[in-house]
Amino acid sequence: VQILMTKDAWARVRDRMPALPTGTQIVTAAAPDLFTIDGSPVATQAVRPEAAWLSSDAFLTGLVQPLADRMLASPAARWVQTSSAGVEMPIFRAIMSAGIRLSNSSALASPMAEYVLAHALSMLVPIDAQRATQAKREWRRTPYHEVGATRWLLVGYGAIGQEVARRAKAFGVHLTVMRRAAHSDEMVDRTISRAEMLSVLPEADVVVLACALNDETRGLADAAFFGAMKPGAILINVGRGALVDEVALRAGLDRDQPARAALDVFATEPLPADAWFWDHPQVRVSAHTSGLGDGYETRGATLFLENLGRYLIGKPLLNEVARQELGLTT
Amino acid sequence: VQILMTKDAWARVRDRMPALPTGTQIVTAAAPDLFTIDGSPVATQAVRPEAAWLSSDAFLTGLVQPLADRMLASPAARWVQTSSAGVEMPIFRAIMSAGIRLSNSSALASPMAEYVLAHALSMLVPIDAQRATQAKREWRRTPYHEVGATRWLLVGYGAIGQEVARRAKAFGVHLTVMRRAAHSDEMVDRTISRAEMLSVLPEADVVVLACALNDETRGLADAAFFGAMKPGAILINVGRGALVDEVALRAGLDRDQPARAALDVFATEPLPADAWFWDHPQVRVSAHTSGLGDGYETRGATLFLENLGRYLIGKPLLNEVARQELGLTT
Repeated sequence: VQILMTKDAWARVRDRMPALPTGTQIVTAAAPDLFTIDGSPVATQAVRPEAAWLSSDAFLTGLVQPLADRMLASPAARWVQTSSAGVEMPIFRAIMSAGIRLSNSSALASPMAEYVLAHALSMLVPIDAQRATQAKREWRRTPYHEVGATRWLLVGYGAIGQEVARRAKAFGVHLTVMRRAAHSDEMVDRTISRAEMLSVLPEADVVVLACALNDETRGLADAAFFGAMKPGAILINVGRGALVDEVALRAGLDRDQPARAALDVFATEPLPADAWFWDHPQVRVSAHTSGLGDGYETRGATLFLENLGRYLIGKPLLNEVARQELGLTT
Repeated sequence: VQILMTKDAWARVRDRMPALPTGTQIVTAAAPDLFTIDGSPVATQAVRPEAAWLSSDAFLTGLVQPLADRMLASPAARWVQTSSAGVEMPIFRAIMSAGIRLSNSSALASPMAEYVLAHALSMLVPIDAQRATQAKREWRRTPYHEVGATRWLLVGYGAIGQEVARRAKAFGVHLTVMRRAAHSDEMVDRTISRAEMLSVLPEADVVVLACALNDETRGLADAAFFGAMKPGAILINVGRGALVDEVALRAGLDRDQPARAALDVFATEPLPADAWFWDHPQVRVSAHTSGLGDGYETRGATLFLENLGRYLIGKPLLNEVARQELGLTT
């Protein structure tokens, strides 16, 4: 039995591994074509893993594709743990189409929620107005509409949405959640379906996109969406760039629908140097970095170890992705 | 029986007043020497109120002193409701010394907590670093130390401190509270006394001053306080300027103790145009405005009406200030 991961990932978990069946081999990748077992190189065709961990460093160093390729070529392949939350990349569809189980990660959820709240609060509370009066040495009041009286629309209610909700509700906001399932919890004031979206947008002061990208959600924020937004509202996108029709967003900003946007994701990444977002005065750009708090690697490793232990004894995996989430029929 | 308030305050509550005893007169002040009953001017010496409401507009228009003077001159004076949270102004001591009951207000607490969280989060989450990379059109990651892993020291745990705590805890921070009472609640991880302050400061990433100003707390943040702070920490003062030795703060900023400060209050207000705070790169200045969300007038009026109803039937007042809080012996 082989378990495949990057060399860096192995360094992070080797002292914390659960008891492995006799004969289990850890195969590590230091480069796309450099696989080793116990420090000795092995031929690529000898890599036939049963399980693989696509850790966060694999996404940063370009090792995801080589690791996924080994799994797809392995007759023994059974389970992949990814450190990503989104699973819309083609490799995940290939993995699940091959009958390999896939579990994703919520390790990024809490820093992403911190990003959402920090950006929303720093726009709702008049920090910019205070900065302007300070620059002019003016002792002047800066009244504002209280956060506690704002209404939020949260599109998507997975791990990220729930972390956003927990923090936003502590401020007393009114929270509407849009999701497929009608199921809700005590943090949510109202749960709506996609069909009700345009009727809720005119009342939402803050709209947060935190859903998965799939055929259903692609281009969800289109011209009709922005046309229905409350003038003065704030848009925050931590989901995927392709959720947004970026031409329609630009037109919306001209009408204050929304008045401001904090965007961490874009249809094309890295964002090209000539993209209009960079110097738009109503737009905040960040580099798909909202989840990069310093705790995500530790949480990701802890999740992999927990799921590995579960996998080995046949217990249900945490965060296992359902085939229907990728549009696969069972 | 006379009840005294400003003309503006009366306009806000006249349709919501509880049933008043027969013969009760509402005396309103439109200017320091212009008192009216039912729209007709009355001589200042004929103003002998039993109760007075020092509403928020009275503080903004200079009517607090004239209203307080009428109460202090009135043989019938029994109760004053103030819209302020702090009661360190000399008039409050005079009022309580005269045996008049005083109740203060928590109407500002929730916007003040919004101010604290907005400023703290916008410094902890790398919004400024993101702004800098955006200005350079650079697609670059901005890693950071997660808010959920920070430790906070909250000095003062009245209405404001508790509202700060409720919001900060939703982010998972470790919360230490410094207060006179050893009593605590489920939001607080640790409660300390003043004697333990210097031993906790070296571990606090965020320090919030939200306590009353009195002989005990004046100059609490002195050279020893800043010398004990964790380098890189954030200081937020929404209490009173005189809690801080401003010379010691300036020296501390040079050593990153604290690295940044958000100050809403100052020893001298309005802050003089030549004060060093205005253009200090590590300091955010606001104009004693942290509580000025658009809900405070409504909350203040609701509290006055509730307390007036209680006063009239002899029920305990909400937020009644104890004589010992002003250093008065019973």
